[in-house]
Amino acid sequence: MKVDGVARRSIQLADDGRSVEIVDQTRLPHRFVTRELRSLADAAEAISSMRVRGAPLIGATAAYGVALQMREEPSDASLQRAIEALFATRPTAVNLRWALDEMRAALHGLPPAAREERAYARAAEICDEDVENCRAIGEHGLRLIEALRERQTEPNPLNVLTHCNAGWLATVDWGTALAPVYLACDRGIPIHVWVDETRPRNQGASLTAWELGQHGVPHTVIADNAGGHLMQRGQVDLCITGSDRTTSTGDVCNKIGTYLKALAARDNGVPFYVALPASSIDWALSDGIAEIPIEERDGSELSRVRGLAADGEEVEVAVLPASSPVANPAFDVTPARLVTGLITERGVCEASSTGLAGLYPECAGRASKS
Amino acid sequence: MKVDGVARRSIQLADDGRSVEIVDQTRLPHRFVTRELRSLADAAEAISSMRVRGAPLIGATAAYGVALQMREEPSDASLQRAIEALFATRPTAVNLRWALDEMRAALHGLPPAAREERAYARAAEICDEDVENCRAIGEHGLRLIEALRERQTEPNPLNVLTHCNAGWLATVDWGTALAPVYLACDRGIPIHVWVDETRPRNQGASLTAWELGQHGVPHTVIADNAGGHLMQRGQVDLCITGSDRTTSTGDVCNKIGTYLKALAARDNGVPFYVALPASSIDWALSDGIAEIPIEERDGSELSRVRGLAADGEEVEVAVLPASSPVANPAFDVTPARLVTGLITERGVCEASSTGLAGLYPECAGRASKS
Repeated sequence: MKVDGVARRSIQLADDGRSVEIVDQTRLPHRFVTRELRSLADAAEAISSMRVRGAPLIGATAAYGVALQMREEPSDASLQRAIEALFATRPTAVNLRWALDEMRAALHGLPPAAREERAYARAAEICDEDVENCRAIGEHGLRLIEALRERQTEPNPLNVLTHCNAGWLATVDWGTALAPVYLACDRGIPIHVWVDETRPRNQGASLTAWELGQHGVPHTVIADNAGGHLMQRGQVDLCITGSDRTTSTGDVCNKIGTYLKALAARDNGVPFYVALPASSIDWALSDGIAEIPIEERDGSELSRVRGLAADGEEVEVAVLPASSPVANPAFDVTPARLVTGLITERGVCEASSTGLAGLYPECAGRASKS
Repeated sequence: MKVDGVARRSIQLADDGRSVEIVDQTRLPHRFVTRELRSLADAAEAISSMRVRGAPLIGATAAYGVALQMREEPSDASLQRAIEALFATRPTAVNLRWALDEMRAALHGLPPAAREERAYARAAEICDEDVENCRAIGEHGLRLIEALRERQTEPNPLNVLTHCNAGWLATVDWGTALAPVYLACDRGIPIHVWVDETRPRNQGASLTAWELGQHGVPHTVIADNAGGHLMQRGQVDLCITGSDRTTSTGDVCNKIGTYLKALAARDNGVPFYVALPASSIDWALSDGIAEIPIEERDGSELSRVRGLAADGEEVEVAVLPASSPVANPAFDVTPARLVTGLITERGVCEASSTGLAGLYPECAGRASKS
């Protein structure tokens, strides 16, 4: 997608053909800063500190992290070390494990001398596949938007609510939840996005609002608290979010607060869709609430807020009483019963074992239960 | 309640016996600053800029605003002007109208020369009545807490979730939602409060966390997004919030986001109570969603965050892309069907016409429908 009118990806090879250039997402929306990853440690740090985030982009960055390590030292022990170090960076998104499994499968049987080239090639493929998957998700989601648009009796734009950032910054390009929005906008369908601020890290306010603004998509930022009220007043036609991990039964683990919006959508008859590539599906799991590990992140994400001071400097301010403890679970689970449908690269299906097995028969056999 | 160990009220007469001293709530939690209101304009500004907020405290401040004006000029026209100016400060909380009606009733038939004394006396009564009402709400709510505590099979503290601030800072003393919590804490019942941050103005993080901390009540601040997840995991035993306006049918208008927590409570079988004095009931209304005006506040409340910089100075930082529009509805309506019960100064009742008429038979006749 575009930044200041120039098309780019969220992760790409640097000019030297070996370093990996990312957008440092901790600096947005106030500064557009890119950063070069030159080692496994750089890649692991970029993921754990959330310079890159979003399930598909975490996977892509981990793939390049393995490639950077293979360049340094292509031994079996080094490969194993890279996979373990990257796997430990974030516990919830399953794409991380998926991408590392892909890299292991591609490299394990090769002689060490052949690993660097193959690692870079496979990481590039993973990125290209992600772009294609997101574009396909966009096309399938666009059909839902067109169908809702046809049923609209008023000339207003179609109002989509999204939570967190599942745009191009969360993937390699296009995004998952926002891919249909970008396609609709590009094709002239009047659309408007309610952007949840997404506390505590403000990914909606910092990233989604920024990328929609760069692409010229009409949007309005709201507090996470406001979505239910807007749905109650008929001001939301459709919710679309991303997913960090989806069970084989259609339970969706996504940014904390997603569950609350799904409840409000059901209470008000608003369709609630989740957009995801198959790499976000954990076929081994059937009960999201019982089985998905929820990352507890540092309390400072809630107690401190970063922003731009009057002098144009970025500063961090404390917003809580110094002695108040904080809890900061980063994800929650939306049970399949609250999800109208899943938008995948192969099409839209019911959020259920049956729905997913219909689109991915070759994977559904790996599900532990169905 | 206590500040640095010294008991005080959120609003009280200053040493001169005529000026009115408030706690400037826009400076908390980092600075405890009091402020003297010396005129009607001071009182109106304190309400509209939210130096004082919370439905009962808005009513008490408005009452003193009328008294300050009667001191200056006790004519009929002046009384009318004061009532109109104060009524225009905030549209949602009904206590404002209630307190102004009380002041008008007390003053209208009096000769101007008698109005100043009577106005101060009636304002003081309104404050004292609020303290007594809140204490009674506390006692009734405490019985709910004791009943839940008896059913607990584990030795953990009872976990209460609250949204926004309905503590002593929202009233004259004690609070509404927090009154039962303070009484439970004072009587040695192990209790712990999950404090919603409450974006966009952070009343939970700034006010509720601060006042609970000052009183020594164990608490943890969470993002507004986290409550559903905690309820799903069995970590919330009870929700209690306040109300800015309650219809005669039990619909509750309260800080934006209350509705989302009520949905999560219902989905997880967690009791959801609302604590309020009768002055927060609008007997003329029967449909909260259709009939209660929802205040839309300035977008800067969302786009800018105030906090303490590293050098100890309070600063405001911008957190959004400069070009992103913002919407900021300040309240939402939780339908009566999601409310387990209302905790009032006369006892606990069902959130319904029947429930409220049982406690307030003399008012229920004023309801337009039932």
